[in-house]
Amino acid sequence: MITSKANPSIKEIKKLKDRKHRQSTGLFYIEGLRLVGEAVQIGARIEEIIYSPELLSSEFGQNLVQEQAKSGIAAVEVSADVFRYFSLKDNPQGIAAAVHQRWHTLADVNILREGSLWLALDSIQNPGNLGTILRTGDAFGAEGVLLLDQSTDPYDPTAMRSSMGAVFSQKLVKVTLEELGTHLQVSPFTLVGASGDSPVDYYQVYYPDNLVLLMGSEREGLTGKHLQMCDYCVRIPMEGRSDSLNVSIAAAVILSEVFKQKTIRRRKS
Amino acid sequence: MITSKANPSIKEIKKLKDRKHRQSTGLFYIEGLRLVGEAVQIGARIEEIIYSPELLSSEFGQNLVQEQAKSGIAAVEVSADVFRYFSLKDNPQGIAAAVHQRWHTLADVNILREGSLWLALDSIQNPGNLGTILRTGDAFGAEGVLLLDQSTDPYDPTAMRSSMGAVFSQKLVKVTLEELGTHLQVSPFTLVGASGDSPVDYYQVYYPDNLVLLMGSEREGLTGKHLQMCDYCVRIPMEGRSDSLNVSIAAAVILSEVFKQKTIRRRKS
Repeated sequence: MITSKANPSIKEIKKLKDRKHRQSTGLFYIEGLRLVGEAVQIGARIEEIIYSPELLSSEFGQNLVQEQAKSGIAAVEVSADVFRYFSLKDNPQGIAAAVHQRWHTLADVNILREGSLWLALDSIQNPGNLGTILRTGDAFGAEGVLLLDQSTDPYDPTAMRSSMGAVFSQKLVKVTLEELGTHLQVSPFTLVGASGDSPVDYYQVYYPDNLVLLMGSEREGLTGKHLQMCDYCVRIPMEGRSDSLNVSIAAAVILSEVFKQKTIRRRKS
Repeated sequence: MITSKANPSIKEIKKLKDRKHRQSTGLFYIEGLRLVGEAVQIGARIEEIIYSPELLSSEFGQNLVQEQAKSGIAAVEVSADVFRYFSLKDNPQGIAAAVHQRWHTLADVNILREGSLWLALDSIQNPGNLGTILRTGDAFGAEGVLLLDQSTDPYDPTAMRSSMGAVFSQKLVKVTLEELGTHLQVSPFTLVGASGDSPVDYYQVYYPDNLVLLMGSEREGLTGKHLQMCDYCVRIPMEGRSDSLNVSIAAAVILSEVFKQKTIRRRKS
């Protein structure tokens, strides 16, 4: 059992909170019965499980550790003190893991697959927003998220927390706007942009199944270079003193309409 | 100019980050040109403005301070160091304010007003979610929020930040479930609950103008005692591994449908 906070393994775990360290190792940190359980269930590539017998009172959790250890995954036992040292929670459940990040390319995800819905996000800055968008996309049938240009890290602990595990099921692709543009020219999918400047309300248009919904950053929304690429743009009408919605809210409102149309089409066919 | 962090006024300002201190003083803390500007514009009751000439480079901000001082509002000058001490931002703009909270009762807000839309939230725990719901409600024409029972504080700095100023325009009412129930018996408004257990999709029902949308807590959603009171309940259909949405997302999806129906009715009439 590791009882020292200065242990190199512990230092490595704690450093996974930094984006740079996540990038250089290709790993990310998850914590708690729900997330670790979900990672195992979905077959995520787990580098190691870290647990504190003192804190891990859940039988489900204890079995999880045993099963992983049996199947050859490193299971690192630490004291409660050490666990609390790297834990992100006030009342840690005593189970955490370092997991391999999973990235796709435009080439290996079949963005052309019939009925496939994707989100493309430009320069989203807030990891909480990104995590919430992943969770919402998952619920409304999205395949995954194309992260354009400078974007926050979906493997950031805050994004992980607000994604509620959707980061495991949603496919993640890093892509430049240029690459997406090139791909668009040879692909039959429709690119729909969300922009307050559009004269068309989001519920007045038909959304085909094969769709990419493009959302701009929190601060700027979509700019000229994005709008040019879109097949069409939609706005969310609003009133009052508001001139904007949170980006994860705006994505959800449009996605809910896309999903509604798809559901109604399915019921009819 | 205050240059000491130990100054009692500065201590008071810093303590406004604690809910207890906000409750005992009836004040809350806002920071930045946008929020302070909005508070002034909307006529919020400002207790004092705190500014650092060194940090406050904006002419708009400087005028704001001068005008408030002229109209008799205390304007407290502090050093950049002191400002950074209580500031919530990495790069503070050098302007902040202590503002009087504004609470309504069921008796003084006219919940019966024709066409009036309200949200009722039970035991929302996350101030970021509450702030986002306020912002979304503002955009989709809500009058305000009824906060039921144990709920986080809309004047929490995190709620303030995510509300983007909507806390100034949305009316806030603290009320127990019992009081709301009693009010319901004599009032013509429709209470709609959001619950995953409902067999009715949110887009399959008619929402009258005079509506209260009831949302449960992040963890539990609505329970039996709430559901009993509702005229009807709606669910948001979803797929994939998801069994829930973030509460602010769920509120937005239903509110967008309510607002859409209202907008279409208005256009027709």
